[in-house]
Amino acid sequence: MTGRVFGIGVGPGDPELITVKAARLLDACSVVAYPATEDGASMARSIAAPYVAANKIELPINIPIATGRFPDAAIYAAAADRIGAHLHDSHDVAVLCEGDPFFYGSFMYLYGLLAESGHVVEVVPGVSSLMACAAMLGHPLAAKNEVMTVVPAPLPTDALRQRLSSTDAAAIIKLGRHFARVRDVLDELGLAERARYIQHATMQEQKSLPLRAVEPDKVPYFSMILTHRQGVAGQ
Amino acid sequence: MTGRVFGIGVGPGDPELITVKAARLLDACSVVAYPATEDGASMARSIAAPYVAANKIELPINIPIATGRFPDAAIYAAAADRIGAHLHDSHDVAVLCEGDPFFYGSFMYLYGLLAESGHVVEVVPGVSSLMACAAMLGHPLAAKNEVMTVVPAPLPTDALRQRLSSTDAAAIIKLGRHFARVRDVLDELGLAERARYIQHATMQEQKSLPLRAVEPDKVPYFSMILTHRQGVAGQ
Repeated sequence: MTGRVFGIGVGPGDPELITVKAARLLDACSVVAYPATEDGASMARSIAAPYVAANKIELPINIPIATGRFPDAAIYAAAADRIGAHLHDSHDVAVLCEGDPFFYGSFMYLYGLLAESGHVVEVVPGVSSLMACAAMLGHPLAAKNEVMTVVPAPLPTDALRQRLSSTDAAAIIKLGRHFARVRDVLDELGLAERARYIQHATMQEQKSLPLRAVEPDKVPYFSMILTHRQGVAGQ
Repeated sequence: MTGRVFGIGVGPGDPELITVKAARLLDACSVVAYPATEDGASMARSIAAPYVAANKIELPINIPIATGRFPDAAIYAAAADRIGAHLHDSHDVAVLCEGDPFFYGSFMYLYGLLAESGHVVEVVPGVSSLMACAAMLGHPLAAKNEVMTVVPAPLPTDALRQRLSSTDAAAIIKLGRHFARVRDVLDELGLAERARYIQHATMQEQKSLPLRAVEPDKVPYFSMILTHRQGVAGQ
Protein backbone atom coordinates (compact mmCIF):
# COMPACT_ATOMS: atom_id res chain seq x y z
CA MET A 1 0.00 0.00 0.00
CA THR A 2 1.61 3.24 -1.12
CA GLY A 3 0.33 6.64 -0.05
CA ARG A 4 -1.69 9.07 -2.10
CA VAL A 5 -0.87 12.61 -3.20
CA PHE A 6 -3.32 15.52 -2.91
CA GLY A 7 -2.59 18.72 -4.81
CA ILE A 8 -4.45 21.17 -2.61
CA GLY A 9 -5.54 24.65 -3.65
CA VAL A 10 -5.28 26.78 -0.51
CA GLY A 11 -7.09 29.76 -2.05
CA PRO A 12 -6.03 33.35 -2.69
CA GLY A 13 -4.71 34.43 0.71
CA ASP A 14 -7.32 34.61 3.47
CA PRO A 15 -6.92 31.31 5.38
CA GLU A 16 -10.72 31.16 5.72
CA LEU A 17 -11.01 30.86 1.94
CA ILE A 18 -9.59 27.34 2.04
CA THR A 19 -12.19 24.63 1.39
CA VAL A 20 -13.59 22.29 4.02
CA LYS A 21 -12.11 19.40 1.98
CA ALA A 22 -8.64 20.95 1.97
CA ALA A 23 -8.79 21.47 5.74
CA ARG A 24 -9.84 17.84 6.27
CA LEU A 25 -7.08 16.47 4.02
CA LEU A 26 -4.44 18.64 5.68
CA ASP A 27 -5.48 17.09 8.94
CA ALA A 28 -5.36 13.57 7.50
CA CYS A 29 -2.06 13.69 5.57
CA SER A 30 1.13 13.03 7.51
CA VAL A 31 3.39 14.88 5.06
CA VAL A 32 2.90 18.47 3.82
CA ALA A 33 4.95 19.76 0.86
CA TYR A 34 4.92 23.33 -0.49
CA PRO A 35 6.83 25.70 -2.74
CA ALA A 36 9.16 28.10 -0.91
CA THR A 37 11.80 30.64 -1.80
CA GLU A 38 15.48 29.91 -1.17
CA ASP A 39 15.27 31.49 2.27
CA GLY A 40 12.27 29.35 3.17
CA ALA A 41 9.39 31.84 2.86
CA SER A 42 6.25 30.21 1.50
CA MET A 43 2.98 31.94 0.70
CA ALA A 44 1.12 28.64 0.37
CA ARG A 45 2.41 27.40 3.75
CA SER A 46 1.51 30.67 5.40
CA ILE A 47 -2.06 30.63 4.03
CA ALA A 48 -2.54 27.05 5.25
CA ALA A 49 -0.88 27.66 8.64
CA PRO A 50 -4.05 27.33 10.77
CA TYR A 51 -4.67 23.85 9.31
CA VAL A 52 -1.16 22.35 9.53
CA ALA A 53 -0.62 20.61 12.87
CA ALA A 54 2.80 20.65 14.54
CA ASN A 55 3.33 16.89 14.11
CA LYS A 56 3.42 16.92 10.29
CA ILE A 57 6.52 16.06 8.29
CA GLU A 58 7.20 19.21 6.26
CA LEU A 59 8.80 19.20 2.81
CA PRO A 60 9.59 22.68 1.53
CA ILE A 61 10.40 22.73 -2.20
CA ASN A 62 12.88 25.58 -2.48
CA ILE A 63 12.69 27.33 -5.82
CA PRO A 64 15.33 29.99 -6.54
CA ILE A 65 13.72 33.33 -7.49
CA ALA A 66 15.89 33.58 -10.60
CA THR A 67 14.38 30.45 -12.11
CA GLY A 68 10.95 31.09 -10.64
CA ARG A 69 9.39 31.91 -13.98
CA PHE A 70 10.95 29.03 -15.86
CA PRO A 71 10.64 25.99 -13.65
CA ASP A 72 13.82 24.12 -13.04
CA ALA A 73 13.18 20.51 -14.04
CA ALA A 74 15.88 19.26 -11.66
CA ILE A 75 14.19 20.88 -8.65
CA TYR A 76 10.83 19.30 -9.40
CA ALA A 77 12.43 15.91 -10.14
CA ALA A 78 14.18 15.99 -6.77
CA ALA A 79 10.95 17.04 -5.04
CA ALA A 80 9.03 14.21 -6.76
CA ASP A 81 11.68 11.76 -5.52
CA ARG A 82 11.38 13.01 -1.94
CA ILE A 83 7.58 12.84 -2.09
CA GLY A 84 7.82 9.39 -3.70
CA ALA A 85 9.89 8.09 -0.80
CA HIS A 86 7.18 9.12 1.67
CA LEU A 87 4.50 7.55 -0.53
CA HIS A 88 6.41 4.26 -0.50
CA ASP A 89 6.40 4.51 3.29
CA SER A 90 2.56 4.62 3.03
CA HIS A 91 2.37 8.30 3.99
CA ASP A 92 -0.31 10.43 2.30
CA VAL A 93 1.21 13.69 1.05
CA ALA A 94 -0.54 17.07 0.73
CA VAL A 95 1.10 19.46 -1.73
CA LEU A 96 0.00 23.05 -1.04
CA CYS A 97 -0.69 25.32 -4.01
CA GLU A 98 -1.54 29.04 -3.94
CA GLY A 99 -5.04 29.66 -5.36
CA ASP A 100 -6.02 26.72 -7.54
CA PRO A 101 -3.46 24.01 -8.48
CA PHE A 102 -4.35 23.91 -12.19
CA PHE A 103 -4.81 27.62 -12.93
CA TYR A 104 -1.31 28.75 -13.96
CA GLY A 105 0.16 26.88 -11.01
CA SER A 106 3.56 25.23 -10.78
CA PHE A 107 1.95 22.10 -9.31
CA MET A 108 1.43 20.75 -12.84
CA TYR A 109 5.14 19.87 -13.04
CA LEU A 110 5.00 17.75 -9.89
CA TYR A 111 1.65 16.33 -10.99
CA GLY A 112 3.16 15.11 -14.25
CA LEU A 113 6.18 13.50 -12.60
CA LEU A 114 4.19 11.78 -9.84
CA ALA A 115 1.44 10.54 -12.15
CA GLU A 116 4.03 9.19 -14.61
CA SER A 117 5.60 7.23 -11.75
CA GLY A 118 2.24 5.56 -11.19
CA HIS A 119 1.22 7.42 -8.04
CA VAL A 120 -2.41 8.30 -7.38
CA VAL A 121 -2.68 12.09 -7.49
CA GLU A 122 -5.92 13.90 -6.71
CA VAL A 123 -6.31 17.61 -7.34
CA VAL A 124 -8.47 19.55 -4.87
CA PRO A 125 -9.62 22.74 -6.60
CA GLY A 126 -9.30 26.01 -4.72
CA VAL A 127 -10.65 29.56 -4.86
CA SER A 128 -8.66 31.37 -7.52
CA SER A 129 -7.26 34.89 -7.19
CA LEU A 130 -9.40 35.68 -10.25
CA MET A 131 -12.61 35.28 -8.24
CA ALA A 132 -11.03 36.84 -5.13
CA CYS A 133 -10.10 40.03 -7.02
CA ALA A 134 -13.62 40.37 -8.47
CA ALA A 135 -15.16 39.88 -5.01
CA MET A 136 -12.86 42.51 -3.55
CA LEU A 137 -13.73 45.03 -6.30
CA GLY A 138 -17.44 44.32 -6.01
CA HIS A 139 -17.65 43.85 -9.77
CA PRO A 140 -18.50 40.69 -11.74
CA LEU A 141 -15.73 39.14 -13.85
CA ALA A 142 -18.15 38.44 -16.67
CA ALA A 143 -21.87 37.89 -17.22
CA LYS A 144 -24.39 36.61 -19.76
CA ASN A 145 -22.68 35.82 -23.08
CA GLU A 146 -19.57 37.91 -22.52
CA VAL A 147 -16.18 36.52 -23.48
CA MET A 148 -13.55 36.65 -20.77
CA THR A 149 -9.85 36.31 -21.49
CA VAL A 150 -7.00 35.59 -19.10
CA VAL A 151 -3.90 37.33 -20.43
CA PRO A 152 -0.41 36.80 -18.94
CA ALA A 153 1.37 40.17 -18.82
CA PRO A 154 4.74 38.82 -20.07
CA LEU A 155 3.27 38.37 -23.58
CA PRO A 156 4.75 40.59 -26.33
CA THR A 157 3.12 44.02 -26.63
CA ASP A 158 1.45 43.23 -29.97
CA ALA A 159 -0.14 40.12 -28.50
CA LEU A 160 -1.35 42.09 -25.46
CA ARG A 161 -2.90 44.70 -27.74
CA GLN A 162 -4.61 42.10 -29.88
CA ARG A 163 -6.00 40.13 -26.91
CA LEU A 164 -7.18 43.12 -24.91
CA SER A 165 -8.88 44.84 -27.83
CA SER A 166 -10.95 41.81 -28.77
CA THR A 167 -12.55 40.66 -25.51
CA ASP A 168 -15.46 41.82 -23.35
CA ALA A 169 -13.56 41.31 -20.09
CA ALA A 170 -9.96 40.50 -19.22
CA ALA A 171 -7.84 39.49 -16.29
CA ILE A 172 -4.21 40.44 -16.84
CA ILE A 173 -2.08 38.26 -14.56
CA LYS A 174 1.62 37.94 -13.63
CA LEU A 175 2.09 41.72 -13.82
CA GLY A 176 5.36 42.33 -11.94
CA ARG A 177 7.82 44.33 -14.07
CA HIS A 178 5.40 44.31 -17.02
CA PHE A 179 2.92 46.72 -15.40
CA ALA A 180 3.93 49.92 -17.23
CA ARG A 181 3.85 48.20 -20.61
CA VAL A 182 0.39 46.76 -19.92
CA ARG A 183 -0.89 50.12 -18.66
CA ASP A 184 0.33 51.82 -21.85
CA VAL A 185 -1.50 49.29 -24.02
CA LEU A 186 -4.70 49.80 -22.01
CA ASP A 187 -4.28 53.57 -22.35
CA GLU A 188 -3.90 53.27 -26.09
CA LEU A 189 -7.06 51.12 -26.28
CA GLY A 190 -9.07 53.53 -24.13
CA LEU A 191 -9.48 50.89 -21.41
CA ALA A 192 -7.16 52.28 -18.72
CA GLU A 193 -9.72 54.51 -16.98
CA ARG A 194 -12.17 51.63 -16.68
CA ALA A 195 -9.60 49.11 -15.42
CA ARG A 196 -8.52 48.38 -11.88
CA TYR A 197 -5.28 47.11 -10.33
CA ILE A 198 -5.46 44.66 -7.39
CA GLN A 199 -2.69 43.18 -5.27
CA HIS A 200 -2.78 40.60 -2.48
CA ALA A 201 -6.58 40.23 -2.66
CA THR A 202 -8.16 38.86 0.55
CA MET A 203 -4.87 39.28 2.46
CA GLN A 204 -4.47 41.88 5.20
CA GLU A 205 -2.33 44.05 2.92
CA GLN A 206 -4.85 43.88 0.03
CA LYS A 207 -5.05 46.94 -2.17
CA SER A 208 -7.07 48.05 -5.17
CA LEU A 209 -6.05 51.10 -7.18
CA PRO A 210 -6.84 52.95 -10.40
CA LEU A 211 -3.97 52.32 -12.84
CA ARG A 212 -2.67 55.90 -12.66
CA ALA A 213 -2.09 55.53 -8.89
CA VAL A 214 0.12 52.45 -9.22
CA GLU A 215 3.90 52.77 -8.84
CA PRO A 216 5.19 50.52 -11.64
CA ASP A 217 8.41 49.52 -9.87
CA LYS A 218 6.51 48.27 -6.82
CA VAL A 219 4.16 45.86 -8.57
CA PRO A 220 4.50 42.29 -7.29
CA TYR A 221 4.15 39.16 -9.41
CA PHE A 222 0.96 38.22 -7.53
CA SER A 223 -1.14 41.12 -8.75
CA MET A 224 -3.75 41.56 -11.43
CA ILE A 225 -5.56 44.09 -13.59
CA LEU A 226 -9.26 43.51 -14.27
CA THR A 227 -10.85 45.24 -17.21
CA HIS A 228 -14.36 45.20 -18.55
CA ARG A 229 -15.85 46.94 -21.54
CA GLN A 230 -18.38 48.71 -19.32
CA GLY A 231 -15.72 49.46 -16.73
CA VAL A 232 -14.93 48.15 -13.26
CA ALA A 233 -13.25 51.27 -11.88
CA GLY A 234 -16.33 53.10 -10.63
CA GLN A 235 -17.50 50.27 -8.42
CA MET B 1 -28.45 48.84 12.81
CA THR B 2 -29.46 47.11 9.60
CA GLY B 3 -28.19 43.64 8.66
CA ARG B 4 -25.53 42.79 6.14
CA VAL B 5 -25.75 40.72 2.95
CA PHE B 6 -23.22 38.04 2.03
CA GLY B 7 -23.16 36.70 -1.53
CA ILE B 8 -21.71 33.28 -0.88
CA GLY B 9 -20.10 31.06 -3.51
CA VAL B 10 -20.96 27.50 -2.48
CA GLY B 11 -18.59 25.91 -4.99
CA PRO B 12 -19.12 23.54 -7.91
CA GLY B 13 -21.16 20.75 -6.31
CA ASP B 14 -19.30 18.71 -3.70
CA PRO B 15 -20.46 20.20 -0.36
CA GLU B 16 -16.88 19.79 0.93
CA LEU B 17 -15.69 22.31 -1.67
CA ILE B 18 -17.40 25.13 0.18
CA THR B 19 -14.96 27.45 1.97
CA VAL B 20 -14.44 27.60 5.72
CA LYS B 21 -15.61 31.24 5.55
CA ALA B 22 -18.82 30.31 3.74
CA ALA B 23 -19.57 27.61 6.32
CA ARG B 24 -19.00 30.07 9.17
CA LEU B 25 -21.22 32.76 7.63
CA LEU B 26 -24.01 30.27 6.91
CA ASP B 27 -23.95 29.42 10.57
CA ALA B 28 -24.00 33.10 11.59
CA CYS B 29 -26.69 34.46 9.24
CA SER B 30 -30.30 34.06 10.33
CA VAL B 31 -31.71 34.29 6.78
CA VAL B 32 -30.63 32.17 3.81
CA ALA B 33 -31.78 33.10 0.27
CA TYR B 34 -31.11 31.09 -2.89
CA PRO B 35 -32.19 30.74 -6.53
CA ALA B 36 -34.67 27.94 -7.15
CA THR B 37 -36.80 26.68 -10.01
CA GLU B 38 -40.56 27.19 -10.00
CA ASP B 39 -41.08 23.83 -8.32
CA GLY B 40 -38.60 24.72 -5.59
CA ALA B 41 -35.53 22.71 -6.64
CA SER B 42 -32.29 24.56 -5.89
CA MET B 43 -28.79 23.39 -6.74
CA ALA B 44 -27.18 26.04 -4.52
CA ARG B 45 -29.38 25.09 -1.54
CA SER B 46 -28.66 21.41 -2.04
CA ILE B 47 -24.86 21.98 -2.18
CA ALA B 48 -25.02 24.03 1.03
CA ALA B 49 -27.40 21.64 2.80
CA PRO B 50 -24.91 20.35 5.42
CA TYR B 51 -24.23 23.93 6.55
CA VAL B 52 -27.81 25.29 6.77
CA ALA B 53 -29.31 24.68 10.21
CA ALA B 54 -33.01 23.94 10.61
CA ASN B 55 -33.74 27.22 12.42
CA LYS B 56 -32.88 29.52 9.49
CA ILE B 57 -35.45 31.68 7.73
CA GLU B 58 -35.32 30.48 4.13
CA LEU B 59 -36.02 32.70 1.13
CA PRO B 60 -36.16 30.79 -2.15
CA ILE B 61 -36.01 33.06 -5.19
CA ASN B 62 -38.11 31.19 -7.73
CA ILE B 63 -36.95 31.80 -11.28
CA PRO B 64 -39.09 30.34 -14.09
CA ILE B 65 -37.03 28.13 -16.41
CA ALA B 66 -38.32 30.00 -19.45
CA THR B 67 -36.73 33.24 -18.35
CA GLY B 68 -33.71 31.57 -16.78
CA ARG B 69 -31.35 32.84 -19.44
CA PHE B 70 -32.66 36.39 -19.47
CA PRO B 71 -33.13 37.42 -15.89
CA ASP B 72 -36.51 38.83 -15.09
CA ALA B 73 -35.95 42.24 -13.50
CA ALA B 74 -39.25 42.02 -11.62
CA ILE B 75 -38.23 38.76 -9.90
CA TYR B 76 -34.94 40.19 -8.68
CA ALA B 77 -36.58 43.45 -7.61
CA ALA B 78 -39.11 41.49 -5.52
CA ALA B 79 -36.32 39.34 -4.05
CA ALA B 80 -34.28 42.44 -3.17
CA ASP B 81 -37.35 43.87 -1.42
CA ARG B 82 -37.86 40.69 0.63
CA ILE B 83 -34.16 40.60 1.55
CA GLY B 84 -34.27 44.31 2.37
CA ALA B 85 -37.12 43.77 4.83
CA HIS B 86 -35.02 41.22 6.74
CA LEU B 87 -32.03 43.58 6.69
CA HIS B 88 -34.16 46.32 8.24
CA ASP B 89 -35.08 43.82 10.97
CA SER B 90 -31.29 43.57 11.65
CA HIS B 91 -31.03 40.08 10.20
CA ASP B 92 -27.86 39.18 8.29
CA VAL B 93 -28.74 37.48 5.01
CA ALA B 94 -26.67 34.86 3.16
CA VAL B 95 -27.43 34.57 -0.56
CA LEU B 96 -26.24 31.22 -1.93
CA CYS B 97 -24.64 31.18 -5.38
CA GLU B 98 -23.52 28.11 -7.37
CA GLY B 99 -19.74 28.16 -7.95
CA ASP B 100 -18.51 31.73 -7.58
CA PRO B 101 -20.96 34.66 -7.28
CA PHE B 102 -19.20 36.90 -9.81
CA PHE B 103 -18.26 34.38 -12.51
CA TYR B 104 -21.29 34.42 -14.84
CA GLY B 105 -23.58 34.23 -11.82
CA SER B 106 -27.07 35.68 -11.50
CA PHE B 107 -26.14 37.15 -8.09
CA MET B 108 -24.88 40.28 -9.84
CA TYR B 109 -28.49 41.44 -10.37
CA LEU B 110 -29.32 41.20 -6.67
CA TYR B 111 -25.93 42.72 -5.81
CA GLY B 112 -26.68 45.75 -7.93
CA LEU B 113 -30.14 46.31 -6.46
CA LEU B 114 -29.06 45.83 -2.84
CA ALA B 115 -25.92 47.96 -3.16
CA GLU B 116 -27.93 50.75 -4.84
CA SER B 117 -30.31 50.71 -1.88
CA GLY B 118 -27.36 51.41 0.40
CA HIS B 119 -27.01 47.95 1.90
CA VAL B 120 -23.61 46.53 2.78
CA VAL B 121 -22.99 43.56 0.48
CA GLU B 122 -19.90 41.39 0.79
CA VAL B 123 -19.04 38.79 -1.85
CA VAL B 124 -17.41 35.59 -0.61
CA PRO B 125 -15.61 34.00 -3.56
CA GLY B 126 -16.09 30.30 -4.19
CA VAL B 127 -14.46 27.47 -6.11
CA SER B 128 -15.57 27.81 -9.72
CA SER B 129 -16.70 24.93 -11.94
CA LEU B 130 -13.82 25.99 -14.20
CA MET B 131 -11.26 24.81 -11.66
CA ALA B 132 -13.40 21.83 -10.64
CA CYS B 133 -13.56 20.53 -14.22
CA ALA B 134 -9.79 20.83 -14.65
CA ALA B 135 -9.19 19.00 -11.36
CA MET B 136 -11.55 16.22 -12.40
CA LEU B 137 -9.81 15.82 -15.79
CA GLY B 138 -6.36 15.90 -14.24
CA HIS B 139 -5.26 18.52 -16.76
CA PRO B 140 -4.22 22.14 -16.11
CA LEU B 141 -6.51 24.87 -17.45
CA ALA B 142 -3.52 26.93 -18.57
CA ALA B 143 0.13 27.38 -17.73
CA LYS B 144 3.09 29.72 -18.27
CA ASN B 145 2.20 32.49 -20.71
CA GLU B 146 -0.75 30.76 -22.32
CA VAL B 147 -3.91 32.73 -23.04
CA MET B 148 -7.12 31.22 -21.73
CA THR B 149 -10.55 32.24 -22.99
CA VAL B 150 -13.95 31.62 -21.45
CA VAL B 151 -16.45 31.31 -24.27
CA PRO B 152 -20.23 31.12 -23.69
CA ALA B 153 -21.70 28.53 -26.08
CA PRO B 154 -24.78 30.64 -27.04
CA LEU B 155 -22.52 33.00 -29.06
CA PRO B 156 -23.07 33.04 -32.86
CA THR B 157 -21.14 30.35 -34.76
CA ASP B 158 -18.77 32.85 -36.39
CA ALA B 159 -17.86 34.29 -33.00
CA LEU B 160 -17.28 30.79 -31.59
CA ARG B 161 -15.00 29.96 -34.52
CA GLN B 162 -13.03 33.16 -34.14
CA ARG B 163 -12.60 32.81 -30.35
CA LEU B 164 -11.70 29.13 -30.35
CA SER B 165 -9.18 29.39 -33.20
CA SER B 166 -7.21 32.18 -31.55
CA THR B 167 -6.58 30.98 -27.99
CA ASP B 168 -4.21 28.51 -26.33
CA ALA B 169 -6.88 27.12 -24.03
CA ALA B 170 -10.63 27.55 -23.77
CA ALA B 171 -13.50 26.75 -21.47
CA ILE B 172 -16.79 26.65 -23.36
CA ILE B 173 -19.59 27.16 -20.85
CA LYS B 174 -23.42 27.17 -20.86
CA LEU B 175 -23.51 24.32 -23.41
CA GLY B 176 -27.08 22.98 -23.16
CA ARG B 177 -28.75 22.91 -26.56
CA HIS B 178 -25.68 24.51 -28.19
CA PHE B 179 -23.51 21.39 -27.82
CA ALA B 180 -23.76 20.05 -31.40
CA ARG B 181 -22.97 23.46 -32.91
CA VAL B 182 -19.92 23.88 -30.65
CA ARG B 183 -18.73 20.35 -31.41
CA ASP B 184 -18.97 21.03 -35.15
CA VAL B 185 -16.88 24.19 -34.81
CA LEU B 186 -14.23 22.31 -32.82
CA ASP B 187 -14.26 19.55 -35.44
CA GLU B 188 -13.72 22.09 -38.20
CA LEU B 189 -10.80 23.64 -36.26
CA GLY B 190 -9.18 20.25 -35.60
CA LEU B 191 -9.68 20.66 -31.84
CA ALA B 192 -12.47 18.12 -31.22
CA GLU B 193 -10.24 15.08 -30.63
CA ARG B 194 -8.21 16.99 -28.05
CA ALA B 195 -11.21 18.46 -26.20
CA ARG B 196 -13.19 16.98 -23.35
CA TYR B 197 -16.80 17.32 -22.19
CA ILE B 198 -17.56 17.48 -18.45
CA GLN B 199 -20.89 17.64 -16.63
CA HIS B 200 -21.70 17.97 -12.93
CA ALA B 201 -18.01 18.03 -11.92
CA THR B 202 -17.41 17.04 -8.25
CA MET B 203 -21.02 15.82 -7.86
CA GLN B 204 -21.87 12.15 -7.47
CA GLU B 205 -23.18 11.99 -11.04
CA GLN B 206 -20.06 13.67 -12.50
CA LYS B 207 -19.06 12.54 -15.97
CA SER B 208 -16.26 13.33 -18.42
CA LEU B 209 -16.50 12.19 -22.04
CA PRO B 210 -14.78 12.62 -25.41
CA LEU B 211 -17.00 14.82 -27.58
CA ARG B 212 -18.00 12.00 -29.93
CA ALA B 213 -19.51 10.06 -26.99
CA VAL B 214 -21.82 12.89 -25.92
CA GLU B 215 -25.54 12.72 -26.77
CA PRO B 216 -26.30 16.30 -27.85
CA ASP B 217 -29.92 16.30 -26.70
CA LYS B 218 -28.96 15.29 -23.16
CA VAL B 219 -26.45 18.06 -22.45
CA PRO B 220 -27.41 20.14 -19.40
CA TYR B 221 -26.80 23.87 -19.03
CA PHE B 222 -24.27 23.22 -16.25
CA SER B 223 -21.69 21.47 -18.41
CA MET B 224 -18.47 22.53 -20.06
CA ILE B 225 -15.97 21.67 -22.77
CA LEU B 226 -12.29 22.24 -22.02
CA THR B 227 -9.88 22.49 -24.90
CA HIS B 228 -6.16 23.03 -25.02
CA ARG B 229 -3.84 23.30 -27.98
CA GLN B 230 -1.79 20.36 -26.73
CA GLY B 231 -4.94 18.41 -25.88
CA VAL B 232 -6.66 17.42 -22.67
CA ALA B 233 -8.37 14.26 -23.92
CA GLY B 234 -5.54 11.80 -23.31
CA GLN B 235 -5.22 12.63 -19.63
